[in-house]
Amino acid sequence: MLATAADLQPMEMSFLGNTLDRQSTKRGDKAYLADLLNRPDTEIVLSTARTLVFSSGDRLELGHRLDAAKALGADPVEMVFLGLREESGRALFATTLAQDDEELDARADLQLIDLRTLALQNALSPEDMGALAQARALIHWHRTHRFCSRCGEKTVMAEAGYRRDCPSCESNHFPRTDPCVIMLITDETGDRALLGRPARLPEGIYTTLAGFMEPGETIEQAVRRETLEESGITVGEVRLISNQPWPFPANLMLGCIGTATSFDIEIEDDELEACKWCDRDEVRQMVGHSHPEGHLIPPSISIAHELITGWLEGHL
Amino acid sequence: MLATAADLQPMEMSFLGNTLDRQSTKRGDKAYLADLLNRPDTEIVLSTARTLVFSSGDRLELGHRLDAAKALGADPVEMVFLGLREESGRALFATTLAQDDEELDARADLQLIDLRTLALQNALSPEDMGALAQARALIHWHRTHRFCSRCGEKTVMAEAGYRRDCPSCESNHFPRTDPCVIMLITDETGDRALLGRPARLPEGIYTTLAGFMEPGETIEQAVRRETLEESGITVGEVRLISNQPWPFPANLMLGCIGTATSFDIEIEDDELEACKWCDRDEVRQMVGHSHPEGHLIPPSISIAHELITGWLEGHL
Repeated sequence: MLATAADLQPMEMSFLGNTLDRQSTKRGDKAYLADLLNRPDTEIVLSTARTLVFSSGDRLELGHRLDAAKALGADPVEMVFLGLREESGRALFATTLAQDDEELDARADLQLIDLRTLALQNALSPEDMGALAQARALIHWHRTHRFCSRCGEKTVMAEAGYRRDCPSCESNHFPRTDPCVIMLITDETGDRALLGRPARLPEGIYTTLAGFMEPGETIEQAVRRETLEESGITVGEVRLISNQPWPFPANLMLGCIGTATSFDIEIEDDELEACKWCDRDEVRQMVGHSHPEGHLIPPSISIAHELITGWLEGHL
Repeated sequence: MLATAADLQPMEMSFLGNTLDRQSTKRGDKAYLADLLNRPDTEIVLSTARTLVFSSGDRLELGHRLDAAKALGADPVEMVFLGLREESGRALFATTLAQDDEELDARADLQLIDLRTLALQNALSPEDMGALAQARALIHWHRTHRFCSRCGEKTVMAEAGYRRDCPSCESNHFPRTDPCVIMLITDETGDRALLGRPARLPEGIYTTLAGFMEPGETIEQAVRRETLEESGITVGEVRLISNQPWPFPANLMLGCIGTATSFDIEIEDDELEACKWCDRDEVRQMVGHSHPEGHLIPPSISIAHELITGWLEGHL
């Protein structure tokens, strides 16, 4: 029995290292949560709509003290409980500040850093990056779900931030996590990989195809549909080999390898501006920053990087 | 390279057989869709809030003709495009009727059958059951997302039913699919499986543990968290082996096998009314309807059945 790639190499990709005890059975216990929130060693992750808010200083620390968070206008009613730290048992909460990014960034005692930049800088532990992924996904959900999608009334936070309730029609709403397939498609020999260039990515980057799963689909069907739509390539066999929470804003990436049953590329939709079959020599140049046309693969924080390098090294 | 269990045994579980060409790149082409809708051989799946609506008759047919759907009050503006049939190229749409179930069921020319009953009866082809899973998931989403979760205004259907737009704050909303882990946990020898009895299931049924994934989690983390919460059992190694769309209302079941690293069961939350380790002899009795206490496993339409019988037969 093999573990998944995600289990074998937990430090390769970002956002896999969350070790918080979420204590989900205690989310309804308001007295317990109030006690946790008021403990002197409790940490509060602060975020704006777009980015995370840290104290200034050389050493980046995940959380703020409750009094400091309150002084910045954090609302104790809208606190999301993330969980207890594995080693120390310290409690972690997260909440949103109402101020503009510019206003906060102008302060000498604060610094604003977005989650993607943090991942690329590798400045925090895998545990902290996992906790921040959880925090940002939940904060985004609360920010975009303040009204009831069934009746239009204002909703209120419940279950320590893992539910929003409508006082009018009594609907309960739960955080959403969007499953996406991301796939390394090889030709029938396994010696060439299908890589594409989404227009939204930085210049030169070629990556695996990917897309959101749709209602009523299996993972295999989604891989085949997305590959056909984006490249005109038909896919036979599909295997899921890895997965990653991707908090931009709240995706679950399902990393697959698939075998093409056709060869001629035809870009059908407007997702990709280019798409090509690459042999291992070309991909090795992309990985080693020595490609003649300057083509690159995505950074190592992503499951795309893992899929591409895993194929290159023959691990898949 | 092994295919996933879902690929190997596509007829074992329900909702895996969808072969519709969803034509997602054409969803913005209103003239094309209007033409499709008005073709004489186009089929319209009709649904109420809870159940599917079929014509009376011995042979169950998936869709209604457009004129018949209109006569029942179907609104052509709220039609969801499901796709084109693989063999015939016929178009399939789906929409909701506003009438009460009772009112429709009283008519001699109609019969109401819910999707779970249809799956258990095995009365339709795997292709049709796949299309109905897609239809029901989308219909549920439209029914519960008529208002903008960002600002509370009424939304309108867009992209042939795969988006709802807010005319006020200009948010775009997309259908949701909720990933759930469902896991066959064995003891360290692999000879005993952990099965639980959720209070909501029919009497006597024991099944695999399961639960919704949370923001910021990997599949492995979700399997470990849910198993610990429900049974007190800690889990080491986890492998994903199968998946299934489960349209009640819109889940993606991620079927895993995991190995326990502890043995003493302690029911921590209120999900399960019982939980036990079962050896193969006992599970064989459950499968064969010969268990002394009348215990059973779930029906073969479910991924739980596949996980349990796959383990029993040594396939996992």
